[in-house]
Amino acid sequence: MKKLILLFLVAAILFAQSNHPNLILTKKDVHVLRENWEKYPLIKKSFEAAKEKVDNALASPIDVPIPKDAAAYTHEKHKQNYNEMQLAGIVYQVTQEKKYAEFIKQMLMKYADLYPTLGKHPAAASNSPGRLFWQSLNETVWLVNTTQAYDCIYDYLTAAERKKIEENIFRKMVDFLLTERVHEFDLLHNHGTWMVAAVGMAGYVMGDIDLVEKSLYGSKKDKKYGFLKQIETLFSPDGYYTEGAYYVRYALAPFFLFAEAINNNQPELKIYLFRDQLLKKGFYGAMELTYTNGAFIPINDAIKEKNYLSPELITSLNLTYKHYGKDDSILGIAKRQDGVMLNEAGVLVAEAISKTEKFENYNYKSIEFTDGANGDEGGIALIRNGSHKDQSLLVMKYTSHGLSHGHYDKLSFCFYDNGNEILQDYGSSRFINVEQKWGGRYLPENKSWAMQSIAHNTISVDEKCQFEGKINLAEQFHSDRHFFELSKGVQIVSAKDEHAFPGVKMQRTMAVIKDKLLPKPIVVDVFKVDSDKEHQYDLPFYYMGHLIGTNINYLNYEKELKPMGSANGYQHLWKQAEGNGTGVFQFTWLNEDRFYTITSSADSSTKIYFTRIGASDPKFNLRNDAGIMLRKKAASNVFATVIEPHGVYDGVREFTAGSFGQIENVTVLASNSEDSAVRIVGKNGIDWTLLINNGKASADEKHSISVGEKKYDWTGNYKLVKNKD
Amino acid sequence: MKKLILLFLVAAILFAQSNHPNLILTKKDVHVLRENWEKYPLIKKSFEAAKEKVDNALASPIDVPIPKDAAAYTHEKHKQNYNEMQLAGIVYQVTQEKKYAEFIKQMLMKYADLYPTLGKHPAAASNSPGRLFWQSLNETVWLVNTTQAYDCIYDYLTAAERKKIEENIFRKMVDFLLTERVHEFDLLHNHGTWMVAAVGMAGYVMGDIDLVEKSLYGSKKDKKYGFLKQIETLFSPDGYYTEGAYYVRYALAPFFLFAEAINNNQPELKIYLFRDQLLKKGFYGAMELTYTNGAFIPINDAIKEKNYLSPELITSLNLTYKHYGKDDSILGIAKRQDGVMLNEAGVLVAEAISKTEKFENYNYKSIEFTDGANGDEGGIALIRNGSHKDQSLLVMKYTSHGLSHGHYDKLSFCFYDNGNEILQDYGSSRFINVEQKWGGRYLPENKSWAMQSIAHNTISVDEKCQFEGKINLAEQFHSDRHFFELSKGVQIVSAKDEHAFPGVKMQRTMAVIKDKLLPKPIVVDVFKVDSDKEHQYDLPFYYMGHLIGTNINYLNYEKELKPMGSANGYQHLWKQAEGNGTGVFQFTWLNEDRFYTITSSADSSTKIYFTRIGASDPKFNLRNDAGIMLRKKAASNVFATVIEPHGVYDGVREFTAGSFGQIENVTVLASNSEDSAVRIVGKNGIDWTLLINNGKASADEKHSISVGEKKYDWTGNYKLVKNKD
Repeated sequence: MKKLILLFLVAAILFAQSNHPNLILTKKDVHVLRENWEKYPLIKKSFEAAKEKVDNALASPIDVPIPKDAAAYTHEKHKQNYNEMQLAGIVYQVTQEKKYAEFIKQMLMKYADLYPTLGKHPAAASNSPGRLFWQSLNETVWLVNTTQAYDCIYDYLTAAERKKIEENIFRKMVDFLLTERVHEFDLLHNHGTWMVAAVGMAGYVMGDIDLVEKSLYGSKKDKKYGFLKQIETLFSPDGYYTEGAYYVRYALAPFFLFAEAINNNQPELKIYLFRDQLLKKGFYGAMELTYTNGAFIPINDAIKEKNYLSPELITSLNLTYKHYGKDDSILGIAKRQDGVMLNEAGVLVAEAISKTEKFENYNYKSIEFTDGANGDEGGIALIRNGSHKDQSLLVMKYTSHGLSHGHYDKLSFCFYDNGNEILQDYGSSRFINVEQKWGGRYLPENKSWAMQSIAHNTISVDEKCQFEGKINLAEQFHSDRHFFELSKGVQIVSAKDEHAFPGVKMQRTMAVIKDKLLPKPIVVDVFKVDSDKEHQYDLPFYYMGHLIGTNINYLNYEKELKPMGSANGYQHLWKQAEGNGTGVFQFTWLNEDRFYTITSSADSSTKIYFTRIGASDPKFNLRNDAGIMLRKKAASNVFATVIEPHGVYDGVREFTAGSFGQIENVTVLASNSEDSAVRIVGKNGIDWTLLINNGKASADEKHSISVGEKKYDWTGNYKLVKNKD
Repeated sequence: MKKLILLFLVAAILFAQSNHPNLILTKKDVHVLRENWEKYPLIKKSFEAAKEKVDNALASPIDVPIPKDAAAYTHEKHKQNYNEMQLAGIVYQVTQEKKYAEFIKQMLMKYADLYPTLGKHPAAASNSPGRLFWQSLNETVWLVNTTQAYDCIYDYLTAAERKKIEENIFRKMVDFLLTERVHEFDLLHNHGTWMVAAVGMAGYVMGDIDLVEKSLYGSKKDKKYGFLKQIETLFSPDGYYTEGAYYVRYALAPFFLFAEAINNNQPELKIYLFRDQLLKKGFYGAMELTYTNGAFIPINDAIKEKNYLSPELITSLNLTYKHYGKDDSILGIAKRQDGVMLNEAGVLVAEAISKTEKFENYNYKSIEFTDGANGDEGGIALIRNGSHKDQSLLVMKYTSHGLSHGHYDKLSFCFYDNGNEILQDYGSSRFINVEQKWGGRYLPENKSWAMQSIAHNTISVDEKCQFEGKINLAEQFHSDRHFFELSKGVQIVSAKDEHAFPGVKMQRTMAVIKDKLLPKPIVVDVFKVDSDKEHQYDLPFYYMGHLIGTNINYLNYEKELKPMGSANGYQHLWKQAEGNGTGVFQFTWLNEDRFYTITSSADSSTKIYFTRIGASDPKFNLRNDAGIMLRKKAASNVFATVIEPHGVYDGVREFTAGSFGQIENVTVLASNSEDSAVRIVGKNGIDWTLLINNGKASADEKHSISVGEKKYDWTGNYKLVKNKD
């Protein structure tokens, strides 16, 4: 049976060989492109832009430099080369003008001369060096693009030319990847995806079934690794990519490109249907992990500028549109991307856009994603409120670690409102491709600060990092989802973690409450920590904006600043001021034209610190953003906090209103292993009690908690009691 | 003769009395409005918005609260009341529906009951307290608006009602202003303008020629003060308003409103032609003092959010359009203002907009304004380059002090590029109308930091402030313009100051050089200081963005920060790091998607400091922005610096190019009392020498300076020698 399939595959490949191009661009694509590229503005613009870029390239001397740097000329030139070759291939197929094929041929010949002479890249510093590039990742991206160009001029080349190109470049590169970099090839990680896509596409284009099989099933073809295993394990069943939003954006490109190549060459594999249409879920999962401004939620290592206009997402959006039922709700994003793929998928999107009069905004909704291959390794909740134009978004993270780019941020959150980051996730510390900043790589402060627990809006215990900051520990555990429930007035999520700090059980519950008494919904944050021993619990809030006022007195270190600590990220925080709670701690800041107030239960033994990022930063790599931190020494504690948007500051009209919030007090009425009760009191008659199930999650179990003489009874995971109702 | 004029005036006023409304809205305006408000979208929208606001007001109970606060309910309510009355008057005139007149009458009756009972405002903290408001400024704005409302319902009221309103409110308010606040009435300052406008408009509406004359000619009618004197002295002949851009925006409203009232009641005064059409020049002067994003250059006290969309500018733009020849180049701004005046001027603008298909951008140009009533008190230069979409703007300031809101910033500059502030003027320290921030007033740090010399991109001597930070000294002097010349390749300004620091002569020359060897023009800054004695010269650059790299080694105070000094603003600067020049000092930062590099001649005795604003700031009032500072101890020195925009950082595409600039070295070849020669060397064959005349400015005088064996000869104030030409 296996042999039979193999024979069939060989036959299919042989057929493909005589049928170039057939990798990403097929003969049908070429036909559709030729017929339609002038018809619809966006495909016309995309094709003309490609042609202009290629024509410019043709007018310049070809340069295939000896690799030297990681973020400067030679790096950028080799990137430029593969881009130009890939586009030239398409332009050649559409126009049939030989000069384009000749350009690719000449360039490939130079690579064919250069590549065999290369050893390890001179600027290689990572543990995965390449030859053309400082890291093999870029090498695989080069191959993914160059195989497409080669595919397009396959029939233009003589057999001898093909032989030279295949032997001197593709074979050598693939051998390098499958021997020296085989660990990465068999890695369940975005680098691995790029690598199997590259090798697989080389396999298809050279008609080498062995390479294709290794790509699909792992270097040993035992199905433990490879493309299919990656789809099975890197995504949860509902489409959350384990590395988070920034890297799914990157990973979707090879996932979709290789899927398209597979679909064109082995349609019988039904790759787009694989795992219950997982690639579709992966694309929409990535979209859900953006804010309304298009920015990806910067959990784990992430460049904050990155948004859904990123070119990698054109590929996945266009192929999703083509293969998954022409969803017009994504056309608004496609229009803003202002470019399409140069194939049938791109034509379909461009045609649909040309026929659309009014584009809908992407229909964001509150949603929870599970993490893990089986969906049982925690998750991430996104709770939204309001129209696309002024939407708040609360993100709470209780996933697994998320591989090498994961941060130690269990039970952290970030909050967006009014188009802006309000309580931030720092993202990564990196100036991508900026040579002066460590060659554009991740900076040392990425590890010493950005990954650390204290860099996140979650609790750090005893000034330590979760899992001691060790990835091999962190990779073994995940947080546990407790419950996630949506109703009209209350949207609530709760999760637990008992591994991040051994001996400390943590549970965070965050509720977004919408009520007619409030102009904007508020966030109620109840963070419960329990231990047998006394610990120091630090809960920071990294607010974006300018401090407006606070209700406490504080000592301001206005003449001398020192760091908050000496390790685990604390060395990077300047201690600007400190004070103590007075039963309640209130703190207001201004972000653009709106005020925000944090109101937190804080007795007089609760320390409040005002911090600023930037200490122990010898090369000025960090952003100097502000934060506040609540510190409590206790065995167990419940931090109860309300985050409240309010008022307006209009600097153009010099109009200010509502610079004080309505919420006046937050108190923990009672809390035990089964339940918690938190009271929220404010102006205009706000007097609410939020009841939370701390025990086993269940929608129909009865609960009861006593507060003094009063007893609250309810059924289910939570109840919001409006006392004045 | 005088008596004859008086008689004529009285007659005119009496005529006006029987001819209400005739203040800002005339019978002709009413007619034009009625005929046209539905015809053109913008006037329709503006009228409907006014009517909706007034209808909402009519549906709510009238509240005329007892004055209490400076930025909270009672303050905002009295502002709301005068706005609603002013609009209701117009709506009444257009619709003739009595309910609108009745609304104004009822509200005025409440004011007529309240006002006589008021003494000094309880929250008054300034030296110019009001009664309804904490400062009399707001009181005059109330009067300017309320007289318009009264004018509109004058004929609706009975004689007895008019008597009560005039006696209890207008007479009392005017008496208060003309007695207790007469110092302010006779002040050549924007507060004075609001006050004479208010009293003059009360005079017109009550038919009181005496009040009008006092407003026009000063409280003693001796023409030493009053509206005409203000026009003569607060503006330079070319239209620069002495307080700067932020306050001209505010002052233009009473200037134009009162001018319109004068024009309607005493057209024979030809107020719009007064002083060679000065009000027109004032309006365009304000426009020229904005960047392409519409923001006013924040010299002196200024809120940075303020831009030309500010409602006060609708008035001056609309009246400029009507009275000064219907300039269509300002219609684009009018369209973005998205509102027009409700009178004939507004109809004209709305009509023109409705007939415009493509709006031109405002046609910014490089321009110099003189300062002072006679144009001989220094000036300000604005040098622009590039299209509206990506324009650089260099502003160099060498004005007089600019009254009470002036900053001690002689020879300072700021620089804009790519739509952003690149080297900033801090503006003022104030959160306008935010109660928590000192009641919304100017903060203490406005004086201790924002006004100080060290807060600006200019030289501070011996850690002192210019003029010892004393306004009575500063008001006596001004800098002197040296030359300002524009050519295609070089735009250059030079100015001198010898009063700011007694015993130190300062000359700053800034040239913007455009050349095909550079992707963007560079700024060359040559700052020459001369003294008999040794001094410490500090030249800071407050850059906006993130530090990318520098060529010098530095000691980073990464574990402990202390202030740069203890007084004159230095107490507000954290000393983050320090190093020494190495012949040349280079420093690169990233702002949004573009890099900027400062290259400065700095020998090993030149100290370089890396600073951050925010020390000695007990209430967190300051923004924590960064700066660098060059410090040189010498009797005389020339600081020569190039500011160079370069490269691109695209976080969405993860593409970076040109993160290093081209300029490599700047050297002062020679400098004496007559001339300076500065050499600029960079990649791609850049080797230029800028020759500057330090002596008496002259376009045709011959100059000569020797550099080693080489002798440069030229004619005029400067020459740029391209050595490789």
